[in-house]
Amino acid sequence: MDILIKILVITLQFLFTKSQHHPLDPLNPNEISQIHQIITTSHLASLPNLTFHFVDLEEPDKKQVLHWLSSNNQNHSTFPYRQAKVVIRGGGETREIILDLTNGSIKSEHVYTGDGYPPLTLTELLRAARLPFKSLQFKDLVSRRGLNSSEITCFPFTVGWFGESITRRAVKLSCFYRERTTNVFSMPIEGLTILVDIESMQITKIITSGRGTPPLPEAEGTDFQSSGRTNPSPHCEINRSFTMNGHNINWKNWRFHVGFNARAGMIISTASVFDSGRNEWRRVLYRGHVSETFVPYMDPSSEWYYKTFLDVGEFGFGRSAVTLVGLTDCPGNAAYMDGYMAGGDGMPQKVPRAICIFEQYTGDIAWRHTEVGIPGKVVTSGEQEVCLVVRMVATVGNYDYILDWVFKQSGSIKVRVGLTGVLEMKPTTETKANQIKEQIYGPLIAKNRIGINHDHFITYYLDLDIDGEHNSFVKANLKVKKAKGSPRKSYWTVVKESAKTEDDARLRLGTNKVLDLLLVNPNRKTNLGNDVGYQLMTGQPAVSLMMDDDYPQIRASYTKYQVWVTAYNKSERWAAGFYADRSTGKDGLAIWSKRNRSIVNKDIVLWYTVGFHHSPCQEDFPVMGTLTNGFELRPVNFFERNPLLKN
Amino acid sequence: MDILIKILVITLQFLFTKSQHHPLDPLNPNEISQIHQIITTSHLASLPNLTFHFVDLEEPDKKQVLHWLSSNNQNHSTFPYRQAKVVIRGGGETREIILDLTNGSIKSEHVYTGDGYPPLTLTELLRAARLPFKSLQFKDLVSRRGLNSSEITCFPFTVGWFGESITRRAVKLSCFYRERTTNVFSMPIEGLTILVDIESMQITKIITSGRGTPPLPEAEGTDFQSSGRTNPSPHCEINRSFTMNGHNINWKNWRFHVGFNARAGMIISTASVFDSGRNEWRRVLYRGHVSETFVPYMDPSSEWYYKTFLDVGEFGFGRSAVTLVGLTDCPGNAAYMDGYMAGGDGMPQKVPRAICIFEQYTGDIAWRHTEVGIPGKVVTSGEQEVCLVVRMVATVGNYDYILDWVFKQSGSIKVRVGLTGVLEMKPTTETKANQIKEQIYGPLIAKNRIGINHDHFITYYLDLDIDGEHNSFVKANLKVKKAKGSPRKSYWTVVKESAKTEDDARLRLGTNKVLDLLLVNPNRKTNLGNDVGYQLMTGQPAVSLMMDDDYPQIRASYTKYQVWVTAYNKSERWAAGFYADRSTGKDGLAIWSKRNRSIVNKDIVLWYTVGFHHSPCQEDFPVMGTLTNGFELRPVNFFERNPLLKN
Repeated sequence: MDILIKILVITLQFLFTKSQHHPLDPLNPNEISQIHQIITTSHLASLPNLTFHFVDLEEPDKKQVLHWLSSNNQNHSTFPYRQAKVVIRGGGETREIILDLTNGSIKSEHVYTGDGYPPLTLTELLRAARLPFKSLQFKDLVSRRGLNSSEITCFPFTVGWFGESITRRAVKLSCFYRERTTNVFSMPIEGLTILVDIESMQITKIITSGRGTPPLPEAEGTDFQSSGRTNPSPHCEINRSFTMNGHNINWKNWRFHVGFNARAGMIISTASVFDSGRNEWRRVLYRGHVSETFVPYMDPSSEWYYKTFLDVGEFGFGRSAVTLVGLTDCPGNAAYMDGYMAGGDGMPQKVPRAICIFEQYTGDIAWRHTEVGIPGKVVTSGEQEVCLVVRMVATVGNYDYILDWVFKQSGSIKVRVGLTGVLEMKPTTETKANQIKEQIYGPLIAKNRIGINHDHFITYYLDLDIDGEHNSFVKANLKVKKAKGSPRKSYWTVVKESAKTEDDARLRLGTNKVLDLLLVNPNRKTNLGNDVGYQLMTGQPAVSLMMDDDYPQIRASYTKYQVWVTAYNKSERWAAGFYADRSTGKDGLAIWSKRNRSIVNKDIVLWYTVGFHHSPCQEDFPVMGTLTNGFELRPVNFFERNPLLKN
Repeated sequence: MDILIKILVITLQFLFTKSQHHPLDPLNPNEISQIHQIITTSHLASLPNLTFHFVDLEEPDKKQVLHWLSSNNQNHSTFPYRQAKVVIRGGGETREIILDLTNGSIKSEHVYTGDGYPPLTLTELLRAARLPFKSLQFKDLVSRRGLNSSEITCFPFTVGWFGESITRRAVKLSCFYRERTTNVFSMPIEGLTILVDIESMQITKIITSGRGTPPLPEAEGTDFQSSGRTNPSPHCEINRSFTMNGHNINWKNWRFHVGFNARAGMIISTASVFDSGRNEWRRVLYRGHVSETFVPYMDPSSEWYYKTFLDVGEFGFGRSAVTLVGLTDCPGNAAYMDGYMAGGDGMPQKVPRAICIFEQYTGDIAWRHTEVGIPGKVVTSGEQEVCLVVRMVATVGNYDYILDWVFKQSGSIKVRVGLTGVLEMKPTTETKANQIKEQIYGPLIAKNRIGINHDHFITYYLDLDIDGEHNSFVKANLKVKKAKGSPRKSYWTVVKESAKTEDDARLRLGTNKVLDLLLVNPNRKTNLGNDVGYQLMTGQPAVSLMMDDDYPQIRASYTKYQVWVTAYNKSERWAAGFYADRSTGKDGLAIWSKRNRSIVNKDIVLWYTVGFHHSPCQEDFPVMGTLTNGFELRPVNFFERNPLLKN
């Protein structure tokens, strides 16, 4: 009864929300309920243990979407049919279903028999986490350690794949002690791993290490409280200068669509920038979102080796989205958007305030010049920078990922990833850094705690459509030349090279000779004849260093390069493959790219990986200060002139 | 008489400014006047054409400064003697003079006979720029081109050095047409270079190119006006939370000193951060500032080859500092500091509002975490980021350099360089990009205009004193290891290596294997036994690509590496040598480093070069949007725990 009332409330809330339609609107609660109803009243209802693992819009074809958008959004007859893609499990099988929401029917259905599993549902994770507390063996073990089991929290971790020929759905639980702290992750109970079989929802094995297991570290100093040094941001009178109609945002010279799903979290679609010189909206980004994350920990010991997470595919960034807190997560002038998804039971769930949107007055200077060359005058002109930020936060267990899309009036889109939250730590009996031997896999960062070395690779799917679908990828390299007949001996020049195929576009950055990476539209030129384009300005480069034949690396082989460009294919969205849980590397970006398709003057997709190598330090305890990295997509010969100026 | 009144006004202004003393306070107008008086009443007064090229505080020894600061700033008997270093020219010679301002005497004096010259004075530059308008040949030439000489502005450019065995002080003038535009630099008059001998202040030669010289481009579309799209920043009630006593700034957990001189511009000194855990102020940075810039243009043709500027040494960033404009250059909550320096005549000159200081409410998240592991609760904690920005802008002709020092409560210092202003352009008869041949040295970026390819290398002098003078430089490298006895095959670990000598610390960045560059104090450990340190987080790497034996590269040979560490030596401040004008590479960072001094547990200086390779695009016209790069100095095991939290 409770659930019915909840659905009713959500449905009513939604119906009374004035929203402008867009063909890429995420599934709304009504639609999620409709999907649930269609499936639970079909033959599928009889499947044992029916669970919903993925419920998302089945995207209409790009052509249909663009056609509808270009027809002034008015012609209801051309609004693309709403369809959904659903992945369920039941009877030990994974089924992919396409539903037609217009006539309420199942359009197609088949059993997936390949490697890997769909994302774990929250229900499964919660049920697994509660299992130890019904286990006498567990209770006995912890009480022998002098721990009170009512103060223990166990968290489920995905188990990866290490060459097994047959896999089962499983998680490993690690447990933490929360007596005298709210910083659960700072109190790891070492030497205790609980293997859970998800299908049977039973503990398979409790693995304990013997003597020499370090005891629980002290709770003192683990709580985090703000220093209180920061004033609240100044009280400001804000005239918000953007509009939000449903999922459509309009701000200054930008318009775009903000979607949300359980897997990617926030999705930016159909972003166009207004060109006041041409007096037209021009297309930049068809669709952009986080595609996958890879977080391998650098500890090969028996308790830690498996921690090599593909968070987006195994858990979901939308599933991990938090309700944003005003004045902590977003400033006072922010507007908020809720997120909806299906639970493991197929029913709609709401994440209130999953996304915030705000104007950022950076205090920076967008452009300026002081001219002293006019006799008797000093002329200073310029403009302050104001950006529009679209933000979500995904908290995946201990780590908090701050995900920003920043739109600039210059036509740039900046994408930033901020890492904060709590480290994964390992207790140690050592108390001084010089007692630590190398094989402990990370530095001593707090009393009796090692911060385990690890990486974060956040891979973005960037379906740029610069002035249309047909684009090319250009590498602009610097070439040093000998100067002839000059007092100078040398200079550099730019040599541009169009990548012919996917192989040509797979890049490991870090050399000084690559100047620019560009996506250009070879069919559109500026009035001066330059190829219209956008540049990828990369951040600090980091690629995965693990050996190519190591199992986690096989699953995330795309992390050996920061940049990939692929031919557009609607089904190629998830860099480590769709079935990431226990995947074996048979699907994903590196596999698709093996076809080495032509990418010249084609609809192409850019993939960029933001990477961090993180060897922790004491400042990361008990909670980490935000570490930020990212990239920028910047117009280069896209406009006839600086778009920040009046024409 | 006018000058006397001006001095009086400045002196009175200064006297009535309540200011706390600091041994590194820049020379105040009284002191500058005193220096002028001492010299003009000494035997030096009789030198023909006496001009003042450099007038700066002769820094007291670090020991004296630190002693006075540690004695609670109260003991006047230990306040270091105020001394000044002055470089004058007269009778064709360069003289270095040390003055004692306490007893008003000349302490030492000698004639400099090495290569290169001191910075050009503004008076010299202005006089040189006016010479053409007294030249009949010039007037005749421009009128034959149909140009009105009263609409022409000529700018002086330094001439560099190209292997000449004897050099004279000289500039080359390039001229621009300002009829119908305020964007002077957008209207270059090509094929006309005027060589001026500075000592005789006469035109030596007017060099014209013959037929085929491209005509003046059109003025249409060259003016820059704001789009007006940006709202003024929101009206805020600000409670400023920093104090400014003279040059001393106190803000939250930071205190530091902001100085100014004609050469470096803004100088940050004696920056300490409060450690609430230890309840003490801890030293981080003794002195930091821009040391030199190198801006070579990539056009070896006869009219352009010499454009290879060392702006700081040839002109001075303080000399080029502009008066900051509220709501364009700095937000509404900024406080301002004036800058003082000596003119070519030795008299004090004021740059009103040369520096601004403001709190930046970025909208970013300093740290956060959402904890779901406590039954029945979702706990979100966190804090907004608030920084303190110290900013100046140096406009060196066409380019505007925005120079920010950003202090964070995390203990980080971020240093940013923003490039904006107007490109150096070359007229062309071509109107379409595909007509441009490679040898034109840059792309077509506006009608009949080539934007010449060029670099910017901004080199910072960073005398970090982490918890004291004796520091070491540590490279933390990533090393991939084979895992044994594990389902995993590999992992990375961190191998730290202390640089023994200056050679070991000279680095060209860009490889994926360098994790961290650290300055540590090997004499101070955290309670856990980690070396106390700060990390250099670098930005996009760029080093100079010109051939090693090319003359401009010989002068700026240090730009082949981003990172240098040298043994501290008070006299080693200017990366391309003190006498940068027409320098021949016999002084500077690369030369000092040849001694390959030990840098282990020594007072050491870190040098970092922020680099840009700039191949322009249409968006850079008629004024460039700001392009930003920089670096961060971040505490790593400096604090016992995250300093953003309460203890």
